[in-house]
Amino acid sequence: MAVSKVEIRTGAYYDSVILMQLQRSLAEQPGVMDAGVVMGTEANKDVLAQSGLLVSEAQRANPDDLVIVVKGEDEAAAQAALDKVDELVSSRRSTGGDEDYRPHDMRTAVRMLPEASWVLISVPGRYAAGVARQALELGKHVFLYSDNVSLEDEISLKQEAASKGLLVMGPDCGTAIVNGIGLGFANKVRKGPIGMVAASGTGLQQVSVRIHQLGGGLTHALGTGGRDLSEAVNAITARQCLDLMARDPDTRVIVLVSKPPSPKVADELVNAARTASKPVVVNFIGYATASRRVDNIFFATTFDETAELAVSLVDSGEDFAVQPDISKFAKGQRFLRGLFSGGTLQYEALLILQHYFPVVYSNAPLDKKNKLEDSLVSKEHTVIDLGEDEFTVGRLHPMMDNDLRIRRLEKEAADPEVAVILLDVVLGYGAHGNPASELSQAIYAALQTANEAGRHLKVVAVVSGTDEDPQGMKDQIAMLEEVGVRVETSNDAAVRYVGRLLQAIERSHQPPTEDRMKHVDLEPLKKPLAAINVGLESFTEALTDQGSQVVHMDWKPAAGGNEKLAGILERMKRK
Amino acid sequence: MAVSKVEIRTGAYYDSVILMQLQRSLAEQPGVMDAGVVMGTEANKDVLAQSGLLVSEAQRANPDDLVIVVKGEDEAAAQAALDKVDELVSSRRSTGGDEDYRPHDMRTAVRMLPEASWVLISVPGRYAAGVARQALELGKHVFLYSDNVSLEDEISLKQEAASKGLLVMGPDCGTAIVNGIGLGFANKVRKGPIGMVAASGTGLQQVSVRIHQLGGGLTHALGTGGRDLSEAVNAITARQCLDLMARDPDTRVIVLVSKPPSPKVADELVNAARTASKPVVVNFIGYATASRRVDNIFFATTFDETAELAVSLVDSGEDFAVQPDISKFAKGQRFLRGLFSGGTLQYEALLILQHYFPVVYSNAPLDKKNKLEDSLVSKEHTVIDLGEDEFTVGRLHPMMDNDLRIRRLEKEAADPEVAVILLDVVLGYGAHGNPASELSQAIYAALQTANEAGRHLKVVAVVSGTDEDPQGMKDQIAMLEEVGVRVETSNDAAVRYVGRLLQAIERSHQPPTEDRMKHVDLEPLKKPLAAINVGLESFTEALTDQGSQVVHMDWKPAAGGNEKLAGILERMKRK
Repeated sequence: MAVSKVEIRTGAYYDSVILMQLQRSLAEQPGVMDAGVVMGTEANKDVLAQSGLLVSEAQRANPDDLVIVVKGEDEAAAQAALDKVDELVSSRRSTGGDEDYRPHDMRTAVRMLPEASWVLISVPGRYAAGVARQALELGKHVFLYSDNVSLEDEISLKQEAASKGLLVMGPDCGTAIVNGIGLGFANKVRKGPIGMVAASGTGLQQVSVRIHQLGGGLTHALGTGGRDLSEAVNAITARQCLDLMARDPDTRVIVLVSKPPSPKVADELVNAARTASKPVVVNFIGYATASRRVDNIFFATTFDETAELAVSLVDSGEDFAVQPDISKFAKGQRFLRGLFSGGTLQYEALLILQHYFPVVYSNAPLDKKNKLEDSLVSKEHTVIDLGEDEFTVGRLHPMMDNDLRIRRLEKEAADPEVAVILLDVVLGYGAHGNPASELSQAIYAALQTANEAGRHLKVVAVVSGTDEDPQGMKDQIAMLEEVGVRVETSNDAAVRYVGRLLQAIERSHQPPTEDRMKHVDLEPLKKPLAAINVGLESFTEALTDQGSQVVHMDWKPAAGGNEKLAGILERMKRK
Repeated sequence: MAVSKVEIRTGAYYDSVILMQLQRSLAEQPGVMDAGVVMGTEANKDVLAQSGLLVSEAQRANPDDLVIVVKGEDEAAAQAALDKVDELVSSRRSTGGDEDYRPHDMRTAVRMLPEASWVLISVPGRYAAGVARQALELGKHVFLYSDNVSLEDEISLKQEAASKGLLVMGPDCGTAIVNGIGLGFANKVRKGPIGMVAASGTGLQQVSVRIHQLGGGLTHALGTGGRDLSEAVNAITARQCLDLMARDPDTRVIVLVSKPPSPKVADELVNAARTASKPVVVNFIGYATASRRVDNIFFATTFDETAELAVSLVDSGEDFAVQPDISKFAKGQRFLRGLFSGGTLQYEALLILQHYFPVVYSNAPLDKKNKLEDSLVSKEHTVIDLGEDEFTVGRLHPMMDNDLRIRRLEKEAADPEVAVILLDVVLGYGAHGNPASELSQAIYAALQTANEAGRHLKVVAVVSGTDEDPQGMKDQIAMLEEVGVRVETSNDAAVRYVGRLLQAIERSHQPPTEDRMKHVDLEPLKKPLAAINVGLESFTEALTDQGSQVVHMDWKPAAGGNEKLAGILERMKRK
């Protein structure tokens, strides 16, 4: 009959690799059917129970206790295996890879490898913040694999790091690739012009491998830890990484991946990304967006799509650094007046403009609070649908009759606060036979009025039609261009152009913001990576396999993991 | 000094073209500075006020009154112009285009053009439902341009039409293209394999012209009216149109455009579209979606993107009609068990699975209400993240140690309700050196167990890695395939495959739904379009210009627009 025997060791620290190996070695002992070696958390006890290994003595174990259970064919076999625990642990230790001297403290490790600019930390969560603090004091970037680190520690570590121009990737950061070398769990990905910032471990891995599979490559892929984009942490690391990627001339496309962040943080990050003069692919996994693109920001919804977009944008040929020319506008000119005949074109315009201005007034607004009190009187940014029912009782639709729109155009052009007028010109059967003729006369007069008053008025028109439409699309466009209208055939393109133009005006009014973040120095990241590893040996092995210089620090918790004693030692140190 | 004179005509009906032309003619009279001819609604009086034409007498006008205002250089000029109103109206009428006989009632019109399968209606809203009802009685499809039609009328008209296999496009339907011929406002768009359904007038126009500009073309573009996708109307017309496009062999790609519909209606429409064996591009303008694609459904966010997707899908080469083979599964096998080591891969899997099943349980669910009571015990569809903190206290991450996952795999495989097991295998530095070897042994055993119990178990794995990873991606894949695992290198592809497979099983359990909608006959739509037009003359002209046969009905409201009298006549008719 099978018999399970248990041993509980209190206050002992072993790293997880050793626990795994001990479990496997025990299971291989003669007469042993199964074995479990776990810390005594409730979840782990449940796991033992699932495997029929939760004997009653083990139920008493605390989360800090090491629980060793052996199920043998008989009591003797089980006991024999348990008796070998210490031998199995120490035999594992003596075959532990390289025979180099292993420093016991970080200062020694740094002296042994001064070129190391990274410290990898994978010790248990409750010790991790202390180790990370030491690394920052020594001027090193931190890759913090450990989980179960408190939010307060995360915030203080990251603030400390940011003030020094250092990165804290993590806690719970599973992966990163710096200059071709993987930290933690990381795939071997080709070097190339795409830079990644990710608050998601396997998200970063999946996107990076798909980029590789598509023939693309990476400058760096930097993890931030899953909590970085929360409101509390406020994306300290993600902002640093974005800034770094934006400055890095080798990075031509930036990819930002995260589980859905706080909407406030998401907005701020996207706004920060919009100032980068390069395309940024954003995948806030499962975060519904109403637009797929805003200027240089491309929203993706799956990892595959993220990778595909990033690779396709490397050689898109589009210049993302172009700034619109706003030099001709007079002081005080800053608002848009959109006069649409097509209801859904107006609706799409409002949707796109949301990404540029918080408030656009309308007689048919997206949000009722932006409804004009009087549809006939514009205020600030206003976009009107002249085809709304209120205007069409006993009156022809504005696609057939330009009268109402021309009267409104004259009025808007006379407003000294108006910088841009946006119109749609919808061609086709049923519509006015020659709308551009009437409109361009009116626009010409409006531009004259503005010019005479010392203003520069920009008129943008989207002409919606085909080359086979009865009005003659080419002629319609030519008539409008003749009087100085900027013509687009896509509503999307027209509205985005207007958004960028007016946003540039808006920004010119704002005082430059002071940047309190110290930039991360790009140069050390481009040198061959060297690191100090504290915790899982397999990370040292992985770095060695990749040809990196690494010093493995032989870390043990203070007082052998006895928390009371450790607390006393810590207090003594501080004095 | 300028003097404005006003004349108010009560209970008179004129169509809007005549009002526009009268206003223009008045403005051209000698000594006249401006003129306004409008129905006396509040909005219109505001418009008059904006142009300085709202003299005090006009303020008294009711919405049914015709208000004629003339601003002259002096009283005599204004009065002289006003005196000419009747003359100007009748001169316009006598030059009214073609000299054909114009029937005064619809039966006569139908006798004159029996091949007409469409009636276009653009009379004022309050009369439009009655005219539409007549058209349906005569077996004609209705294109209902008129706005201001009541919701009740819309619903009853559409229900009536659907029961007869007829379409009511509208009310407030501005545009449609049937077999190359534009109705209402419509561009001249090339014929081709894309079929459009739109609850948005200029949305339909903008997408259709962009399709044309990109070299694509249309079978039909059918409008539904802006309210069709509301919960009240329940997309009666859109469903008919989708069904029609799905059956039409000439339509290879379907495009569905609408302002954001009710979420319930949106879900139902998308579900209906998923049964079409062809790609459907959906743009619920400004409706945020968390996924960009679900099987044959492609979500677009702008008109440009909608057109680009539609054109690119015409020759995508993908077979959207393929159904997964579910014949081997035993009765009772219907659930998924996903065992992930990568947290974000698991998260993406849950996001994608949302489109297939309302409920997927997890230890890390999207919605707390789907959290497993016990992470170790699956129920129904369950997808687990084995890398969650609860499992990693003192234990190696499942990317390094397969033990926990293998134990779980054995358990899931023994469950007779399980049809599919989904795994991720994450390669790279730091991860297990040969995960496929351990996993494939366990999978082989699990498949054996299931087989012996008379079940067919499908195991799907996503291998996340590159060809340069230390484990050797090719070998890892080969080991898994060797034991019968379906391997994908994209998480997206793996999860979608699983979703389709299990959805097919789900559907096989459901009784076939009875279809109460009468199909719209496809054949008449392919014949040269012929129509009867009731209302705006310009729509008759547009049809004639396009070479279509059209009879213009000389419609006047009963009793000349006098509502009281019309009511009496209507009641008399009913008797």
